[in-house]
Amino acid sequence: MVEEVKLFRTWSSPYALRVVWALQLKGIQYETVLEDVSEKSDLLHRYNPVYKKVPVLLHNGRPISESLVILEYVDETWKQHPLLPQDPYARATARFWAKFVVRDCYTHEEEEQEAALAEASEHLQKLEEELRGKKFFGGDNIGYLDIALGWLANLIRVSEEICSHKVVNYERFPLLCAWLKEFSDAPVIKDCWPPHDKLITKFIALRQLHHARSSST
Amino acid sequence: MVEEVKLFRTWSSPYALRVVWALQLKGIQYETVLEDVSEKSDLLHRYNPVYKKVPVLLHNGRPISESLVILEYVDETWKQHPLLPQDPYARATARFWAKFVVRDCYTHEEEEQEAALAEASEHLQKLEEELRGKKFFGGDNIGYLDIALGWLANLIRVSEEICSHKVVNYERFPLLCAWLKEFSDAPVIKDCWPPHDKLITKFIALRQLHHARSSST
Repeated sequence: MVEEVKLFRTWSSPYALRVVWALQLKGIQYETVLEDVSEKSDLLHRYNPVYKKVPVLLHNGRPISESLVILEYVDETWKQHPLLPQDPYARATARFWAKFVVRDCYTHEEEEQEAALAEASEHLQKLEEELRGKKFFGGDNIGYLDIALGWLANLIRVSEEICSHKVVNYERFPLLCAWLKEFSDAPVIKDCWPPHDKLITKFIALRQLHHARSSST
Repeated sequence: MVEEVKLFRTWSSPYALRVVWALQLKGIQYETVLEDVSEKSDLLHRYNPVYKKVPVLLHNGRPISESLVILEYVDETWKQHPLLPQDPYARATARFWAKFVVRDCYTHEEEEQEAALAEASEHLQKLEEELRGKKFFGGDNIGYLDIALGWLANLIRVSEEICSHKVVNYERFPLLCAWLKEFSDAPVIKDCWPPHDKLITKFIALRQLHHARSSST
């Protein structure tokens, strides 16, 4: 039987990228359906009627939504290149950190930005500890948590280019810095990054929109 | 080896109840550590330094946080009475719905309340469909999704007692109504509900606090 694997995504969604990377790592052939966030397709409404968001993975006619749920599904359905570790405690640790988010630092006013950065740093310190003695969060190979935190690599690259601050500096987070580079440069990962210039343009527009809104109140 | 299993919870946390039910269903002996939300213990800060929230499960000295992560850990560590189904797609469906939340309907102003109720109804309709042909979301037995949605049973019981509206009526959601009753009355579940009167008192106080805040702006 030829399998039908379709991924509904946008060109820039970091959540959708998680699924792209997982499918690439496992070597699964799939078809991409590019969605426009400003005009979502009827199919997206049909396949994710609760949140109407990408990513949606369609596997032999059955839709799965929510990027972390999709990662687990992909890992359970295709066994090659396991994403989650075997040990239950290591799995729990990976799942815990996968939900971790850093508040956007680039869209805040200066004072808010500093508070957001302080909180981010405190949490990043704990992630730094998770990397001790390992190349990737998954060990020698890219795994579930690397993929889940991939947006962080993305955000940091862009933030540092368009903002004045450096969220992750080498002196304070040497292991995270090394991870950012190893992960971003890994062939499977690198090949799937959204076009850099287009991303920068998008983030600058978002920041301007935010500033315009803040100053109009 | 005697296992150390400790659960840090509060008397009313619906997220902690998920873990209580899971441990009870699997017949695991454990010790309860009751936390006071207004004065969290040093141990809670130590075991969940990122969010400082209950529930935390401590298993042989190692802490696990986030209720849904704990449920997966419990299910992978103790195999008796499996919580998640075996089939990857059924697992994905259970995980998707486990994240589902209904916005609190009891704390809103009338107009907001109606919008929240309309959205809740739309989503509850989809949950209703999930129950077709089944006694529990897990099939014949209480499973992961039943436990994850247990707060719903809790919220609905309390909301209906202290508010005028009925979120889940029998005519519109007959299967959900039957599930609410089956689930709430199952011995393992019933034995662990927080004291009803104390819960009602708490929700009335919360509602008054919210009203006081709304009218002081």
